[in-house]
Amino acid sequence: MKKRPESIVTFNRSIIEATSDLAVAYKINTAFYEQYGGFGWDIMDETLRHIPSNCYTIADAKRGDIGNTSAMYARAFFENLKFDSITVNPYMGEDSVRPFLDYGKGVIVLALTSNDGSKDFQYFEQSGRPLYIEVLQKVSTWAGSDQLMFVVGATRSDRLREIRTVVPDHFLLVPGVGAQGGSLKDVSLNGLNKLGGLLVNASRSIIYATDGEDFATAARNEALKLQNEMSGYLP
Amino acid sequence: MKKRPESIVTFNRSIIEATSDLAVAYKINTAFYEQYGGFGWDIMDETLRHIPSNCYTIADAKRGDIGNTSAMYARAFFENLKFDSITVNPYMGEDSVRPFLDYGKGVIVLALTSNDGSKDFQYFEQSGRPLYIEVLQKVSTWAGSDQLMFVVGATRSDRLREIRTVVPDHFLLVPGVGAQGGSLKDVSLNGLNKLGGLLVNASRSIIYATDGEDFATAARNEALKLQNEMSGYLP
Repeated sequence: MKKRPESIVTFNRSIIEATSDLAVAYKINTAFYEQYGGFGWDIMDETLRHIPSNCYTIADAKRGDIGNTSAMYARAFFENLKFDSITVNPYMGEDSVRPFLDYGKGVIVLALTSNDGSKDFQYFEQSGRPLYIEVLQKVSTWAGSDQLMFVVGATRSDRLREIRTVVPDHFLLVPGVGAQGGSLKDVSLNGLNKLGGLLVNASRSIIYATDGEDFATAARNEALKLQNEMSGYLP
Repeated sequence: MKKRPESIVTFNRSIIEATSDLAVAYKINTAFYEQYGGFGWDIMDETLRHIPSNCYTIADAKRGDIGNTSAMYARAFFENLKFDSITVNPYMGEDSVRPFLDYGKGVIVLALTSNDGSKDFQYFEQSGRPLYIEVLQKVSTWAGSDQLMFVVGATRSDRLREIRTVVPDHFLLVPGVGAQGGSLKDVSLNGLNKLGGLLVNASRSIIYATDGEDFATAARNEALKLQNEMSGYLP
């Protein structure tokens, strides 16, 4: 079903209808729409319109450029598309992140990602302090925890306690539970704060729970399973 | 003229026709198209079709994500749009860059960017070696200089000699001459290698050389001026 682009909206709508009473947020991975060019952007827009307004929407777009260009990306995702938040790459520094913050919407900055390649540069150390800690420390001074969040991969749960000493109050967006093999238990035990403070994301394990016609039911069951497991860890 | 999206292709076409005998490459800043959503992607595609095939095309998109997602971005820019190359953010490491390399097309990785924010993380040092040098060293082992390039901002020309000791053979894409104030002379003196090895980019100073009706002529004159100046520095 996921192969024909024109059926993607139908697929997405079924997934949303089957899970929206369970989901706090929907994270749309923009690359999977961009592959279809202008048509892909149109169906991303259409998909967004099917998400109930009480669910938070995340453009997982990993953008970031010099100021005047980040301002255009912010316009693309906050004005043209009506996302509540966007993921941003910190490599180019404050003036590349600022235009997203200026919209007053959610800005979710990459700190420690779930992939193997995170080891290449994110662990680069100055005086024993890795780059991802420097990112957390510096970026967290640019806006409040009401607007700013950080990406920390579920596969890096061994670093979550240390991360919580640097950003005790910020929400963390945690991808990597499910298909990427991160443990929800370890993430919860090490990453929860008093208010919860974790937005745990599962994508492929839910939307591709089965190849069959009953994909929406299977997605709901998978989402329920995660919700049940997580509620056992909540403070 | 640049304000009405439907006139962008006409504007671009005039700029291309007025400069294509002078330009080695055209760098399209994708954010400025994405702000218009699906329609923006369509006019980016149309613009690309007006660029003569002997000019190199660069998607200045600054993408990068986990492997399966970078593969979708690569498809978006190398298959759906027919770009020759793309700019890539290195923060997420090798598996985020690899899918772009797998297409055999040009991959231009951010090292030291032209904006103020570059100081926030790119100068982060391990044992006296800044992150941007680590990026150059590590990434340059992932592919040959026939395919891989690096972004070094024109405003960082004081670092170019040091950069040339790390990547003597790679092409450097150098934005920041023109509106951002970088000096073409300093860039050339410090960055040229035996084969040239510099792709110096000017954007706003050329395409917005004037607000008047004669924008294409003004753009040509500005491009000529840069070409003339640079030819004086070539080995």
